[in-house]
Amino acid sequence: MASHSPPLDALVVPSEDYHQSEYVSARDKRREFVSGFSGSAGLALITKNEARLWTDGRYFLQALQQLSDEWSLMRMGEDPLVEVWMSDNLPEEANIGVDSWCVSVDTANRWGKSFAKKNQKLITTTTDLVDQVWKSRPPSEMSPVVVHPLEFAGRSVSDKLEDLRAKLKQESVAWLYNIRGTDVAYCPVVHAFAILTTDSAFLYVDKKKVSDEANAYFNGLGVEVREYTDVISDVALLASDRLISSFASKTVQSEATKDMEIDADQHDRLWVDPASCCYALYSKLDAEKVLLQPSPISLSKALKNPVELEGIKNAHVRDGAAVVQYLVWLDKQMQELYGASGYFLEAEASKKKPSESSKLTEVTVSDKLESLRAAKEHFRGLSFPTISSVGSNAAVIHYSPEPEACAEMDPDKIYLCDSGAQYLDGTTDITRTVHFGKPSAHEKECYTAVFKGHVALGNARFPKGTNGYTLDILARAPLWKYGLDYRHGTGHGVGSYLCVHEGPHQVSFRPSARNVPLQATMTVTDEPGYYEDGNFGIRLENVLVVNDAETEFNFGDKGYLQFEHITWAPYQVKLIDLDELTREEIDWLNTYHSKCKDILAPFMNQTEMEWLKKATEPVSVSA
Amino acid sequence: MASHSPPLDALVVPSEDYHQSEYVSARDKRREFVSGFSGSAGLALITKNEARLWTDGRYFLQALQQLSDEWSLMRMGEDPLVEVWMSDNLPEEANIGVDSWCVSVDTANRWGKSFAKKNQKLITTTTDLVDQVWKSRPPSEMSPVVVHPLEFAGRSVSDKLEDLRAKLKQESVAWLYNIRGTDVAYCPVVHAFAILTTDSAFLYVDKKKVSDEANAYFNGLGVEVREYTDVISDVALLASDRLISSFASKTVQSEATKDMEIDADQHDRLWVDPASCCYALYSKLDAEKVLLQPSPISLSKALKNPVELEGIKNAHVRDGAAVVQYLVWLDKQMQELYGASGYFLEAEASKKKPSESSKLTEVTVSDKLESLRAAKEHFRGLSFPTISSVGSNAAVIHYSPEPEACAEMDPDKIYLCDSGAQYLDGTTDITRTVHFGKPSAHEKECYTAVFKGHVALGNARFPKGTNGYTLDILARAPLWKYGLDYRHGTGHGVGSYLCVHEGPHQVSFRPSARNVPLQATMTVTDEPGYYEDGNFGIRLENVLVVNDAETEFNFGDKGYLQFEHITWAPYQVKLIDLDELTREEIDWLNTYHSKCKDILAPFMNQTEMEWLKKATEPVSVSA
Repeated sequence: MASHSPPLDALVVPSEDYHQSEYVSARDKRREFVSGFSGSAGLALITKNEARLWTDGRYFLQALQQLSDEWSLMRMGEDPLVEVWMSDNLPEEANIGVDSWCVSVDTANRWGKSFAKKNQKLITTTTDLVDQVWKSRPPSEMSPVVVHPLEFAGRSVSDKLEDLRAKLKQESVAWLYNIRGTDVAYCPVVHAFAILTTDSAFLYVDKKKVSDEANAYFNGLGVEVREYTDVISDVALLASDRLISSFASKTVQSEATKDMEIDADQHDRLWVDPASCCYALYSKLDAEKVLLQPSPISLSKALKNPVELEGIKNAHVRDGAAVVQYLVWLDKQMQELYGASGYFLEAEASKKKPSESSKLTEVTVSDKLESLRAAKEHFRGLSFPTISSVGSNAAVIHYSPEPEACAEMDPDKIYLCDSGAQYLDGTTDITRTVHFGKPSAHEKECYTAVFKGHVALGNARFPKGTNGYTLDILARAPLWKYGLDYRHGTGHGVGSYLCVHEGPHQVSFRPSARNVPLQATMTVTDEPGYYEDGNFGIRLENVLVVNDAETEFNFGDKGYLQFEHITWAPYQVKLIDLDELTREEIDWLNTYHSKCKDILAPFMNQTEMEWLKKATEPVSVSA
Repeated sequence: MASHSPPLDALVVPSEDYHQSEYVSARDKRREFVSGFSGSAGLALITKNEARLWTDGRYFLQALQQLSDEWSLMRMGEDPLVEVWMSDNLPEEANIGVDSWCVSVDTANRWGKSFAKKNQKLITTTTDLVDQVWKSRPPSEMSPVVVHPLEFAGRSVSDKLEDLRAKLKQESVAWLYNIRGTDVAYCPVVHAFAILTTDSAFLYVDKKKVSDEANAYFNGLGVEVREYTDVISDVALLASDRLISSFASKTVQSEATKDMEIDADQHDRLWVDPASCCYALYSKLDAEKVLLQPSPISLSKALKNPVELEGIKNAHVRDGAAVVQYLVWLDKQMQELYGASGYFLEAEASKKKPSESSKLTEVTVSDKLESLRAAKEHFRGLSFPTISSVGSNAAVIHYSPEPEACAEMDPDKIYLCDSGAQYLDGTTDITRTVHFGKPSAHEKECYTAVFKGHVALGNARFPKGTNGYTLDILARAPLWKYGLDYRHGTGHGVGSYLCVHEGPHQVSFRPSARNVPLQATMTVTDEPGYYEDGNFGIRLENVLVVNDAETEFNFGDKGYLQFEHITWAPYQVKLIDLDELTREEIDWLNTYHSKCKDILAPFMNQTEMEWLKKATEPVSVSA
């Protein structure tokens, strides 16, 4: 920092890669390398004499565990924003460095505004300073580009291009090519940039990743493949040539790509999505010729086509079958190895101890779950690191167990499992919380409150135009009655054989959840929770699809929407205080369980089916 | 408009008076005079060849009834905003006139921005053009200023002044004098402006309204009374003299006054509340010396002191007694005169016809209600025109019956009564919807949905910091399940012997409901509804007080809040489909009814008490 020109007073290390991705490849985990904190969201700040890490409520516990004493944790939502802290605490005229490839236009502009108060400057570092000191930085991924077949993509690239080029005249969007890859763990994407103009389409990717077949595919589509590193010079060229063109900067994610694009009425302007385009590319442009506006691309991607919807639902059925098979297996293991009373019986364990070699840990059981998923058709990998967590680890919202340092399974403690997979036809995400012994009255009370919130959101009907900010309270209100809450959003979109976290909509108390209303054919998770530090955590999560609702009336001719649950796995009735449920909730539970049984039956062997029947038996309100 | 200098292309006639009030005196009803539309909210626009009236969802029906064919109704929330419409439809460089006393700084600035696109200009008219053509304009109110006694105000003026002057050093606020008047119907205020500085306090009021006693009172407080019309010259003087001072512009409403005030760190700046200060006063100031920010005064007023809270609760008990006595009387009349089956029995009326002289109309029955209220201690008048509405009139959300043109009572139709009164110790606001014959299944279904929303909001618990925008959906979600909704907010603050509609908080889908969180000691109404044009309307309304909640847990150490109902009158069980209620809702209804009976008992004679006992009998869930 001192030898940089100009010398830096502070260095910001964001967690994003050149494509502003949430999940990044090992080589791009710069923030984890400098801080030791491995959560998916966070920002490190290194000044001359201290180091601070900002992260959100999901990660407070994990960060405290992973950060060394040199680091101070800054809690987002409680402590000052990073730009406010820098402006308040760094000296006048401080130089604050950042690798401008790793920061979005939005972020850079927001910081710039905050810095102006004290004449501080955001300095684009000449190279990434972290990379310079990172001796053992993993090599680049060289995974090939794989064409995503129409059978699963639902819409051809030519069709998408044609549609978008037609729209270019009106509202101009960039769109990308039905391709997938494995550059990044858990998200089947390829590191690439793309530029789409009214006449041409460019793909910037390491050419070593593009097979002859893939090249032929791109040629057939009229897509010109160019070298990844050429994007910066091409952008400059585009800008200076005032081409009628638009370009996108993003890890290629089929339609997931955010874009820069032109305003068709003013052919010399380029439309840049400030949230997804990196500052490095933006800074090559003449600001006057740029239209900074959110891109409609992410909405197009969020609205699933019929083939995608069918695929996602099918993937969730196979995935639910794997989860039930896992629970059956785990129930048996817990009883045999640990003397647990089991999934159905509410009694203390007999305190059996397994031999050292047959011990079950958070990691070994989640490996079993992965193997059950891997046996399912179209499996392509997990959609995120499985959160397999026992007791107090379950209170770490995005806990990720490590083989060497994870907890052993315990029949006296709650077990929370949040997991998902990538299938060729869809991406899944499911959380169930179970207890194989005797849960405490308090644990049952909390599980019941979380369940009530989960059902209230899932059962909601709402007029078109309603956003996830408005709906968020439905999942929280039952918890609030007890003075309980959770420090994370309630739902995110889920990709179609793409990233498990997908925008632009969300269900959350965050103001950004107001930007985009929920719309028919969107996917969204429903995942309230409750976390008691040092004790236990509870979360229940299903993926929902937004559908048109057939309401009895249609006041204001607005049209109403409702959710369809597409995740299939039972809730553990033992953890529900049935007396606290309304008849509507009881009815919903029985209907859901009955469907679970029927839908998953084809995948079950006899033992599994017996377990599933028992787990989905109808319950009734106590007198 | 043509002879004005400069000539005007359009004239805006807002509904506000010089103090940006919601309820204005007869003399200030300029918008009603020009358009014929008498609702409390709306804006008229007159151009060279057309006339348009903007109003909100509460008034769509009423406006259609009242506007002549020359007027076009512009539906707020559906049609373009007035400033957008003007900018889109009026010519380039159009001169758009307005009386700048009747428009807030906020509004004038917002319009100005919109007009800039086409070089249109907002022209401050030299006089009010409406007043010029209004031959029969009512004379000025000359009601005296009445000191509001400490016994009801709860906090002395000196105490408030001292507190605020102390705060002036920090955040500077203006505050006013415990006084009331009757310049405006329904809201016990005096037309006045006020200026508070660190050393002085000025009251601008027509001196004819100030009795010798009131003068002595002001002298004792160190408040200098100055002539109402002097405010404009004094403001100019203050501005040019760069005094350490602040001034407020508002109908005097005890602490209700919004303010302009200084930033203590920069003694030459004046803090102006852009939402409540009129543009005329603001325009006398040098914009560079003005700090445009919402005033904290309205929050101070919304947080009730213990004396005010006790008074408001007592007033609501007496008011509830009057409402029950009214229902008992009305029930008897409907049976005797119209052969109605009555409040309790669900059966068709026997179609009796009363003699012409004994006919009951919406107006005659509401006169009876007023007389019952007037007999109660501390009664000072109604808090707004009673909405007494039969059948399809109940679908006109802010219907106001006229003696000559109102409907007759009808035992076969729903009757909605939204009413309230001013008592020396508090202001009330209550709505009940009843049927004295056989309601249709559809009416019961809708009443039940409204009731569920009303209970869901009233029973909510929520962490501190939650605003009414977030809570609004709780009252709507049960209606949304059926595809029902209502075109108005769910709740407003209620003054303490002041205006019945009071900010700064509200429960609503409107973005402004996000500005101020609900806080302990605030009052707020809980009034969802459902309106079927041409058929019937349903609304249920109680006033709630925000209290600290004693929750079982306190996640995040946030502290939780809950509501206390302070309105007392039964709901008509005959209109509720009990099968649709949860046990929680049934329990709530029984508890509320039981309290109603006990709290109102001291006011009831024997007949009334028998009726009340029957109306509040516990109900049970059907098997």
